Amino acid sequence: MRTITIKPKAITHNLNQVKKMAPHSKVLAMVKSNAYGHGIAAVLPALQQADGIGVATLTEALEARQLGWNKTIGLIEGAFTADEWQQAIDSDISCVIHHEPQLQWALENIPPASSATRVVWIKYNTGMNRLGFDAEGVIAAAKQLHAAGYQLILTTHFANADNSTHPLNAMQIQRFSDVLNTLQETVSADIQGSLCNSAGIVNFSEHHYDWIRPGIILYGSSPVVDQSAQELDLQPAMDFSAQIIALQTVNADHAIGYGSRWIAQKDTRTALVSIGYGDGYPRVVNDDAYVSVIDTSNNQSYRCSVIGRVAMDMIVIDVSTAPEDIALDSKVMLWGDAPHVDEVAAHAGTISYELLCRLSIRPKRVQA
Amino acid sequence: MRTITIKPKAITHNLNQVKKMAPHSKVLAMVKSNAYGHGIAAVLPALQQADGIGVATLTEALEARQLGWNKTIGLIEGAFTADEWQQAIDSDISCVIHHEPQLQWALENIPPASSATRVVWIKYNTGMNRLGFDAEGVIAAAKQLHAAGYQLILTTHFANADNSTHPLNAMQIQRFSDVLNTLQETVSADIQGSLCNSAGIVNFSEHHYDWIRPGIILYGSSPVVDQSAQELDLQPAMDFSAQIIALQTVNADHAIGYGSRWIAQKDTRTALVSIGYGDGYPRVVNDDAYVSVIDTSNNQSYRCSVIGRVAMDMIVIDVSTAPEDIALDSKVMLWGDAPHVDEVAAHAGTISYELLCRLSIRPKRVQA
Repeated sequence: MRTITIKPKAITHNLNQVKKMAPHSKVLAMVKSNAYGHGIAAVLPALQQADGIGVATLTEALEARQLGWNKTIGLIEGAFTADEWQQAIDSDISCVIHHEPQLQWALENIPPASSATRVVWIKYNTGMNRLGFDAEGVIAAAKQLHAAGYQLILTTHFANADNSTHPLNAMQIQRFSDVLNTLQETVSADIQGSLCNSAGIVNFSEHHYDWIRPGIILYGSSPVVDQSAQELDLQPAMDFSAQIIALQTVNADHAIGYGSRWIAQKDTRTALVSIGYGDGYPRVVNDDAYVSVIDTSNNQSYRCSVIGRVAMDMIVIDVSTAPEDIALDSKVMLWGDAPHVDEVAAHAGTISYELLCRLSIRPKRVQA
Repeated sequence: MRTITIKPKAITHNLNQVKKMAPHSKVLAMVKSNAYGHGIAAVLPALQQADGIGVATLTEALEARQLGWNKTIGLIEGAFTADEWQQAIDSDISCVIHHEPQLQWALENIPPASSATRVVWIKYNTGMNRLGFDAEGVIAAAKQLHAAGYQLILTTHFANADNSTHPLNAMQIQRFSDVLNTLQETVSADIQGSLCNSAGIVNFSEHHYDWIRPGIILYGSSPVVDQSAQELDLQPAMDFSAQIIALQTVNADHAIGYGSRWIAQKDTRTALVSIGYGDGYPRVVNDDAYVSVIDTSNNQSYRCSVIGRVAMDMIVIDVSTAPEDIALDSKVMLWGDAPHVDEVAAHAGTISYELLCRLSIRPKRVQA
């Protein structure tokens, strides 16, 4: 059975790790994109100790409210229209304001003093060049918003925080610090700051400010290039598994699968596994890609290479490393403890975030 | 709004194209993996003129029955367990039998004569080396199944049908033809054949046999390397769209997005689009990747390059080609008529099948 197993205890563990790393900051836990593919309904109960959650769309925000989340919700790209701004007010959503139209909606339609929408995350573009005002613009916007009665959190986003030595990091930190100081001195001492995503939390512990915004780290993947999830004592929050549906021996010199791209060097015991890109396993993986076959009779695990092209509904693996009598129906781990999803992502030339988000609805979803 | 628009009329058109290409064959329309990501409920009504549908899992088969599909359902990897074989009987599912355990389940548990499960698709491995019996095995299995009262369809699967000149194609066709002849002469003249997937339908019109198994072609993508969807007169069955959520100018020498991988050569008008890999747009695309920005006031369309790294929730595009007053909220086509999903797949180093299947649940789904 193609199965995605979500482990809420792992998420709570990872949140606690984050809180240890940044003990003086509030936590806005990122649950956008259906909680990085884990399913927001499964994840929210594990995040009770977070101070708020972050989402990318109003729909996601409203879903979280419907699921009973009654603390802060941050809409990290803000409202897309004036109508969305009103809906944000109606549901007490705190919005990012990153460009002029959003500023105008906020100035023209001021929520009640008691509303969480009175807290605005004002975005400063320090070098990502995607969202945000420039230094002059953010100061001007902050003055107007403050005068209109909004409480402000200055925020920005790192472009290269995964790579601690990238020169842009220091520049972004400096720019952020300078503008925050200016705002606190010239507008209000109460203006807060939020700088760090997962990678920033790990790499820039001197710069955690008032709110941190952990995302991938909550789900058990490493956000940085030079430390593994294990080294950060993170636990993967998802097991992705399938089963062996056929066993056979492929003779030497025979090719396997589409494009005949894998050719047996010798007679090779293979197994067919009921998983494919139609489930969300990546179609293009390199020769290092492997899965773990579990002999459920004794819980032994065998590392087996993925061979041939990943198809929509199945993959072929080399079971030479497993006993000859490995059972049909044996469980196959695509990712979980081993391989870790970070490893699979490396084999697929991408990052774990993408693999987690791009799962299809076909696998059965359960909680551990 | 992130939106997936399914076009049932396009699917019916594509089915009619297939039927023109193979006028003497019955059609098993592939709807596995949630109808290649299009949504089986949306697709089935468009396939009323197909003779049957093909699915990869028993769950998919049962869902199609629940949705009211009362014609043939072919389970193309067959039952995974003896229990699934019984469930297939209970719901009149026709199964592939590709290895010894499935043969035993079928011989030990014979469905009533009236059951569709009495029709068995027996799989011959002609060179894909994934599923199927060898020549000797398939003949022996066919004899036993025929003696037990089953009606048989011999089937196999091409490894390289997208590439008409690949030498394995002729070998697979010859092997298939030889064994089918043998079975018809020595077991039963009524044994039917099914050889061609989408690519085979296009490339091997002399070898369509009794049943063809179109998949990707129904959804409007080209299954072959040397003819485009347009050349095959196919219509894309999915529009994938989003909207502009911010406009800005990035100054020369500034980098955009994660990894700072795109650097502006000159001051560049850019737009932020509310789509990312969290929706199913591929994270890794090359510099040829583009989208179409639609000016809804006059329906003009502008080709705009994707610049910088695709993120979970947004992409940045170069809108130099669009008017300066292009509206916030303008519609952005990720794929549809232009770019065709086949183009996006080429930019992402994969095939359209994967892009269509690996869409997340976040985009809103509608029908045209």
